[in-house]
Amino acid sequence: MRRFKLTLAYDGSAFMGFAKQEGFNTIEGTLENALAKLHVFSQISAAGRTDKGVHATCQVVALNAPKFWSAPKLLAHLQPKLAPHIVCQSLEQVGLDFHPRFCAYKRRYRYIFTQNPLSPFLARYVALHPHGTLESLQEALNCLVGTHDFKYFCKTGSSPKHTRRTLYKAFCYPFCMGRLNCVVVVFEANGFLRAQVRLMLGAVLKYSLGHLSLEDLRAQVALKRRVCVDLAPPSGLYLSRVFYPQP
Amino acid sequence: MRRFKLTLAYDGSAFMGFAKQEGFNTIEGTLENALAKLHVFSQISAAGRTDKGVHATCQVVALNAPKFWSAPKLLAHLQPKLAPHIVCQSLEQVGLDFHPRFCAYKRRYRYIFTQNPLSPFLARYVALHPHGTLESLQEALNCLVGTHDFKYFCKTGSSPKHTRRTLYKAFCYPFCMGRLNCVVVVFEANGFLRAQVRLMLGAVLKYSLGHLSLEDLRAQVALKRRVCVDLAPPSGLYLSRVFYPQP
Repeated sequence: MRRFKLTLAYDGSAFMGFAKQEGFNTIEGTLENALAKLHVFSQISAAGRTDKGVHATCQVVALNAPKFWSAPKLLAHLQPKLAPHIVCQSLEQVGLDFHPRFCAYKRRYRYIFTQNPLSPFLARYVALHPHGTLESLQEALNCLVGTHDFKYFCKTGSSPKHTRRTLYKAFCYPFCMGRLNCVVVVFEANGFLRAQVRLMLGAVLKYSLGHLSLEDLRAQVALKRRVCVDLAPPSGLYLSRVFYPQP
Repeated sequence: MRRFKLTLAYDGSAFMGFAKQEGFNTIEGTLENALAKLHVFSQISAAGRTDKGVHATCQVVALNAPKFWSAPKLLAHLQPKLAPHIVCQSLEQVGLDFHPRFCAYKRRYRYIFTQNPLSPFLARYVALHPHGTLESLQEALNCLVGTHDFKYFCKTGSSPKHTRRTLYKAFCYPFCMGRLNCVVVVFEANGFLRAQVRLMLGAVLKYSLGHLSLEDLRAQVALKRRVCVDLAPPSGLYLSRVFYPQP
């Protein structure tokens, strides 16, 4: 048995999320079916399970395959079975103890949004949401950076063992897509809870529009009260990098 | 009763084509449903009926609405009901005799393709197809320009009364989308038959790859023999302009 680390980009709008669900088109299900056609019957583990409509430019998954599969051969056979909505960026053999989720020490998400009229050809890939100034967005982002119990920024219904995470970075910058003025927000953390990025963004956007105070936002971070459960739309969200220690 | 001319852009990958079909999500059906919610019960006529997966940056449709609807009011109510995959670009009142198909004197289609690895975020909007040089593509395109009976470049099964059309222009140029090298082909004609653009492109691409001779292509245009029925993929095709006489 060999273990492989596969790096993927995918269009989340083509799937009902990463996690396999009976009767639905999912990224995990598509990967398992493509592998099964090559007689590779492997469970797949992923660095993170993206929700419905959420994209990845750099998702990392691990799978096992019999020893006669080399990385280049498996990549060449797998790619055509995943196109066009999933694209393999790299495939490499790793140690049998590699786990894409537990070995990762940091993840990066990017979120891109605009408040300007959106072409139908960008509607799946850029979120449409009113927002305030870049300065106000950054002010709210600064409240989130650090080590906190992010329980109030986690989708109810999910019950992780621990909800303490360290958000290393949260910053925004203007970005033009052709003639469309957008904003990009980058988050880097040791890990993220279910829907955490979209819940944090929901609060950040609300503050930037003057509908939430910094005090309220800080109170939610400090678990004093849950003031905002707005969920930013999934279309603007990209899992964009997973960091592993140098081998 | 008032008549309105509505100009639309849409993401063809979200629909099963323009023409209404029971049980399928179509552009015509979506428009009629959106209008019905405004209590506007109108048949819709369009400049051209795009196939499944074919996009439009500038489709023109006409509809009737009661006299209390002004163009700005109807536009403001209609747009949110069509978003995000259909975007209204303009709406104007026109004469009751306006017909988007019969009044148009020229149509323009653009086709964009690449033979390089395609990101999953462009896969719906750029066709992936091997091709030869721009010079060879242009050589084949030149054979198509002019007034011809394009019967052999029409999807079998469709039976238009006349299959004679004048192709005014057919040219190609290189185009970069970010780091992706693409080719754009533009066609302008007084009208197009069902799947004509994709059948013409199928032959043009085949010639550019050396799998078809100019003699064969000319013979197909002259109705001597049908040598190529290759259909270029729909994802690269955009109805990009419909021309009407100045009022």
